[in-house]
Amino acid sequence: MIPADSAVALPHMPVDVARIERWIGEFAALTEEGPGVTRLGYSALEREAHALFGAEMSALGLTVRGDTAGNTIAELSGLEPDGPALGTGSHLDSVPQGGRFDGIAGVCAAMEVARAVVQSEWRPRHSWRFVAFATEEGARFGQACNGSRAAAGLVSTGDLAVVKDSHGVSMSAAMAAVGLDPARIAESRWRSEDWLAFVELHIEQGTVLEASGTSIGVVDAISGSTRLLVHLDGVASHTGGTPMHQRRDALAAASECVLACERIANDATHHGTRVTVGRLEVQPGSITTIPGEVSFTIDIRDFDSERQRRTAHLLDAQFRQISAARGVGIRSSVIGDTSPVFLPVEIVDSIVSAARERGLTYRLLSSGASHDSQQISRVTPTGMIFVPSIRGLSHVPEENTAFDDIALGAQVLLDTLIALDGSGAPGPAAAWTA
Amino acid sequence: MIPADSAVALPHMPVDVARIERWIGEFAALTEEGPGVTRLGYSALEREAHALFGAEMSALGLTVRGDTAGNTIAELSGLEPDGPALGTGSHLDSVPQGGRFDGIAGVCAAMEVARAVVQSEWRPRHSWRFVAFATEEGARFGQACNGSRAAAGLVSTGDLAVVKDSHGVSMSAAMAAVGLDPARIAESRWRSEDWLAFVELHIEQGTVLEASGTSIGVVDAISGSTRLLVHLDGVASHTGGTPMHQRRDALAAASECVLACERIANDATHHGTRVTVGRLEVQPGSITTIPGEVSFTIDIRDFDSERQRRTAHLLDAQFRQISAARGVGIRSSVIGDTSPVFLPVEIVDSIVSAARERGLTYRLLSSGASHDSQQISRVTPTGMIFVPSIRGLSHVPEENTAFDDIALGAQVLLDTLIALDGSGAPGPAAAWTA
Repeated sequence: MIPADSAVALPHMPVDVARIERWIGEFAALTEEGPGVTRLGYSALEREAHALFGAEMSALGLTVRGDTAGNTIAELSGLEPDGPALGTGSHLDSVPQGGRFDGIAGVCAAMEVARAVVQSEWRPRHSWRFVAFATEEGARFGQACNGSRAAAGLVSTGDLAVVKDSHGVSMSAAMAAVGLDPARIAESRWRSEDWLAFVELHIEQGTVLEASGTSIGVVDAISGSTRLLVHLDGVASHTGGTPMHQRRDALAAASECVLACERIANDATHHGTRVTVGRLEVQPGSITTIPGEVSFTIDIRDFDSERQRRTAHLLDAQFRQISAARGVGIRSSVIGDTSPVFLPVEIVDSIVSAARERGLTYRLLSSGASHDSQQISRVTPTGMIFVPSIRGLSHVPEENTAFDDIALGAQVLLDTLIALDGSGAPGPAAAWTA
Repeated sequence: MIPADSAVALPHMPVDVARIERWIGEFAALTEEGPGVTRLGYSALEREAHALFGAEMSALGLTVRGDTAGNTIAELSGLEPDGPALGTGSHLDSVPQGGRFDGIAGVCAAMEVARAVVQSEWRPRHSWRFVAFATEEGARFGQACNGSRAAAGLVSTGDLAVVKDSHGVSMSAAMAAVGLDPARIAESRWRSEDWLAFVELHIEQGTVLEASGTSIGVVDAISGSTRLLVHLDGVASHTGGTPMHQRRDALAAASECVLACERIANDATHHGTRVTVGRLEVQPGSITTIPGEVSFTIDIRDFDSERQRRTAHLLDAQFRQISAARGVGIRSSVIGDTSPVFLPVEIVDSIVSAARERGLTYRLLSSGASHDSQQISRVTPTGMIFVPSIRGLSHVPEENTAFDDIALGAQVLLDTLIALDGSGAPGPAAAWTA
């Protein structure tokens, strides 16, 4: 699949592990105080990270622009600059107290691919675009992948006003605060005819690659997620003065809900469904006051689109039964919803070929986490390369991946893009949504 | 029981409801931002409230002093000033987002009793002491009644260094920050020979008086409390990338613990035991991260001292089983422990007589909440007068009691003190600890 001329060029474009390590360190320094990395979507720190990405790409001679969703795109012109482009990239935001690799590894791999091509004698036929997506993590606002969803035309200005972070700040307000114009979000939409294909490198965030001693994961499917925000309204009162039978304890009700989430995910009909209550806040939060209010979030992940939404409905119904039995009020809302995606076999094959040519171990696997690729696959044929996560840990300060593994992944990414560049478009957009 | 001369004097010493209402309003203004009243123990705001109490008492001509525990004591000299004194009072601190009556009603009733006596022609035989206790609420540090426990000789300087609030500030450090010297805590101890009796007025914080249309509650027993702080250490990881069977979810474990607390309090052997998880904090608290750490508090209240401590042991054992089954680590510690107390029948009888003389409805009842009287009963015979709580709500902004009901309670308090003053000491300290 790799054209003869680029096959010759490959050995002259080695990726440089030291440069990847340095860039990851520089991005990691852009964090709030506290353990790990905290660089939330549409924060000033995320914008600094985008500026750093843009500056490095400009220094390599690429043309850099930001779009209205906060995505940053650096373009390396090809020999046929008016045709469709190849893309690669990932995101630069993090969860609260997260790690230094989630998203950033893919951006740094893209940066190193750009560096390797620019400093070689080889020139691509198509233009190549290196992308840092904005606000991929759903940790702040509930809805994940805002930058790539905007690129896929899935976000309206109205949507941005509705989703809010835990401080009540809407995504619109957060965007405006960092100089973006939410009213112009539609302008960030990508046109399918401008794109040939897109490939994202990302850490696995699971244990499959490490446990099997595999260097390269080739993603064939990405989990969807439905997210709920639930408020329970009980009655706060004195822990000494209120007999057990007179209580409307919002935390006792919430505890039943948490266990209902675990139970439904573990039942026989939900093999592969994952349900998590990640945030739970108790008011007034005093040792001697019965909890009057509890808010919590549910994250439902599935590869089966129908089951994902059905699980959300079933849980909501169970929460209402639990609350009614305790005389506790309930309000719930969907704060994020993304369908699972199966990635096109053409791109999967290209990545497999590239890994095989390099003599690397590889395996196909599916992604439990959401990714920008999930959104971009609606615009252009998209693939994902996974590199091993140490102990599978992610979204925590201990998140780790060997820099050598990122470099191997970046090399496969470069080889795949060269192959796609030479072989032309892999056909019409083949992604489909379950 | 009331001597003839004071029976004559009674009609000339009416308590003034308007003055009680004004004082309660002035104390309520000393609060942090937010709903209700937040004036935590050993905060600058609590000290302001003590200063206001001291200034009002000084203005009436009483001798005011503060002790090393932060208690403020205003003395009205009797005709026999060298003999033992009668006391009344309560506390001026609040829980977070609490009400304006818990503790304050009793201090304002004491202030109005002082005012009524000073402005009458009648003089007591014994000196009368009006007391504002420090840091009664256990909401900040876990251990309740620090000021009155110090007066009862139950607090050492070492104890003060151990207990900490949710920000990790020790009670010692909090005391030092408001100008108190924790090294001198022992100096605040009261000697039994200096006291004749003590009577505290307090809001009921329950529904018994309101539901039965009763004006005056006469407390015969006060619940004890044992408080635990529990930390669960699971493994934080990505909600999408981590299969259900690989999880060590600290919040799922904590939810089982919360329901175990409710279950034990509701079982057939625990009639009257109340168990509450009031504070529960989840780390890292992100929608897309499995909770790695949860801390929560347990408040166990009982009138049966043995059962109270046995419940704490049983729950701790259950928490360890729950954690072990989930591969979650656990640490727990006792952060507060107070025995239940039965109040001496002599004082109960004095309050009953005073209520009956005024033609008021009254009933004996026990207190589910802890009170400074519980501690002071170790020093001198102690009684408590309850006034009705509207809807039983307490430790919340909606906490409410009719000012007229506080005034009726203050009148009974004044009449009881006059009776005790005339009848002399009711005998040796008769309180006993279950």
